[in-house]
Amino acid sequence: MSKVAVLGAGSWGTALSIVLADNGHSVRLWTYRKEQAEAINATYRNEKYLDADIPEQIKACHELKQAVDDVSAIVMVVPTKAIRDVCKELNNTLTHRPTIIHATKGIEPGSLKRISQVIGEELARYDSEDIVVLSGPSHAEEVGKRLPTTVTVSSLNTQHAAYAQDLFINESFRVYTSDDMIGLELGGALKNIIALGAGISDGLGYGDNAKAALITRGLAEIARLGVSLGANPLTFLGLPGVGDLIVTCTSHHSRNWRAGNLLGRGQKLDEVLDQMGMVVEGVRTTQAAYQFAREQQIEMPITEGLYTILFEDKQPGDVVEQLMNRNKREEMNDISAFSSDSRPQ
Amino acid sequence: MSKVAVLGAGSWGTALSIVLADNGHSVRLWTYRKEQAEAINATYRNEKYLDADIPEQIKACHELKQAVDDVSAIVMVVPTKAIRDVCKELNNTLTHRPTIIHATKGIEPGSLKRISQVIGEELARYDSEDIVVLSGPSHAEEVGKRLPTTVTVSSLNTQHAAYAQDLFINESFRVYTSDDMIGLELGGALKNIIALGAGISDGLGYGDNAKAALITRGLAEIARLGVSLGANPLTFLGLPGVGDLIVTCTSHHSRNWRAGNLLGRGQKLDEVLDQMGMVVEGVRTTQAAYQFAREQQIEMPITEGLYTILFEDKQPGDVVEQLMNRNKREEMNDISAFSSDSRPQ
Repeated sequence: MSKVAVLGAGSWGTALSIVLADNGHSVRLWTYRKEQAEAINATYRNEKYLDADIPEQIKACHELKQAVDDVSAIVMVVPTKAIRDVCKELNNTLTHRPTIIHATKGIEPGSLKRISQVIGEELARYDSEDIVVLSGPSHAEEVGKRLPTTVTVSSLNTQHAAYAQDLFINESFRVYTSDDMIGLELGGALKNIIALGAGISDGLGYGDNAKAALITRGLAEIARLGVSLGANPLTFLGLPGVGDLIVTCTSHHSRNWRAGNLLGRGQKLDEVLDQMGMVVEGVRTTQAAYQFAREQQIEMPITEGLYTILFEDKQPGDVVEQLMNRNKREEMNDISAFSSDSRPQ
Repeated sequence: MSKVAVLGAGSWGTALSIVLADNGHSVRLWTYRKEQAEAINATYRNEKYLDADIPEQIKACHELKQAVDDVSAIVMVVPTKAIRDVCKELNNTLTHRPTIIHATKGIEPGSLKRISQVIGEELARYDSEDIVVLSGPSHAEEVGKRLPTTVTVSSLNTQHAAYAQDLFINESFRVYTSDDMIGLELGGALKNIIALGAGISDGLGYGDNAKAALITRGLAEIARLGVSLGANPLTFLGLPGVGDLIVTCTSHHSRNWRAGNLLGRGQKLDEVLDQMGMVVEGVRTTQAAYQFAREQQIEMPITEGLYTILFEDKQPGDVVEQLMNRNKREEMNDISAFSSDSRPQ
């Protein structure tokens, strides 16, 4: 049995802590909010984030040093925008070299760097090749209820990936490995763009037919971006792509879908973010992908449309109608991201 | 404006008739039940099948001769098992050569023939190359409400496909063309297998994470079968594959999902089919795919599991658990259907 630190006590960090505790590991669940840590330790609940009882093997703490002291692995589940700061603090704290696993689904705006790249840059004594990513179709709420879930881990260091697999795998939480780390990180991040779009479509009162078309075209579009950043297009057809898209776009658990839904019902971005009270990664991811797609001239009509809703105050109804009424043409054009010609050489 | 016959007054036949009527065409909607035809003409409703008002340009009839006389196109939307009989009757009736479009999502058990092949065999003066298929993610209920929908048409005769596209396309019903007729027919048929499985998973009380994993693995599995029958694997990534899977597996409109859901809740197949009162194509399709996969040694674990539930009285809970707990292994193995190596030469 191992000692593991989980950094970030939101829904997903809490759910992953429960999986580790179920597997007999001793878990320190870190949050920067002292009151939250105290409440978790007093009540064995993390009310705002997850409807689940928290096992005794999980101890919450708000001192980073206390969290990571003597652990064999650190699981990072902090929001994208906090990653660099947490890494800097870890540099002042870590005296040994535990395995680093991250489960944050985002990319850095501006640089379009993946989370493992950001961690590799910031964390002393680690390269991005040392980092493991864990991603896949997984609502935290269902993981907390031990409902069957499958995720994928990947690292350029296959030993680290195998260790992460062993830490997490159990009867209801199935963990696969993949050798496409880039695709795994990008699939998890980019699907949030399409989830916002799916929420908007639902918020506008369109039905399942329209949403399925949007998700299908969205898959092709994020795969095109992923391939241009070095991902294997096939990854987008597996759990980290199609699977995660389906979960995020068709379930009301998803906070990106919920944010999109409120936008579709006519609310403005600021109001929506206030109302959510949680990080909506898809907003920053849309910004990042939009900028990159423009620079690299990658066709991403859904992302572009979404960007104009989020940041240029365009009406959701007008944008979706425009997307629907693009010229009739051959279906095949849209899935060219998956043809072997477009694979990175 | 054209005269068009729609054969089959179920949900989908009725919805397609409404699209044609909206486009200004004159429609004869054929059903073999005299009372149904009379009720439609008297009430402008088709209560059992579709919650929509039926425009005046649609006339229902139960005489095939009356339906097809002088039409420029025939749209066949009859159940798979009735296709051969209807074709035989058409041979006794047709005196001219209208374009034949079919929108039936099934394959023939035993022969594993696609619907266009069956029509080409039976219909005098037509080959399967003359037939057009129309398929895609499309709940009839939403089409009846004019909610945005996208479908694809395909034919080896591109002029016929273009004619079908022009007949149906309008602002809320977008019609794309594809040059992969085999994939288009198989995608629409085979996804019903996975829809039954998704319904079972939901009926057992599993969540969205499990269902997304099932759909993702299901996509790989039906693509493997499709490729072995000559389909382009990329078709399964477009509207006829991923798109139709999402609509059918995540929406309670789907009768295949509903049938699966009842099975997951413990009902037996006979009870379920009685209760549905409509054709559940996925049951016959599972049988057909299972037999072919065994003969050709194609790995289709979900289809095999489903077959044992439907026809060998296995407990759904046991089968799904077994599927979840297959050995841990690399995720990539499951999506090999999409790699260029496995494409038909």
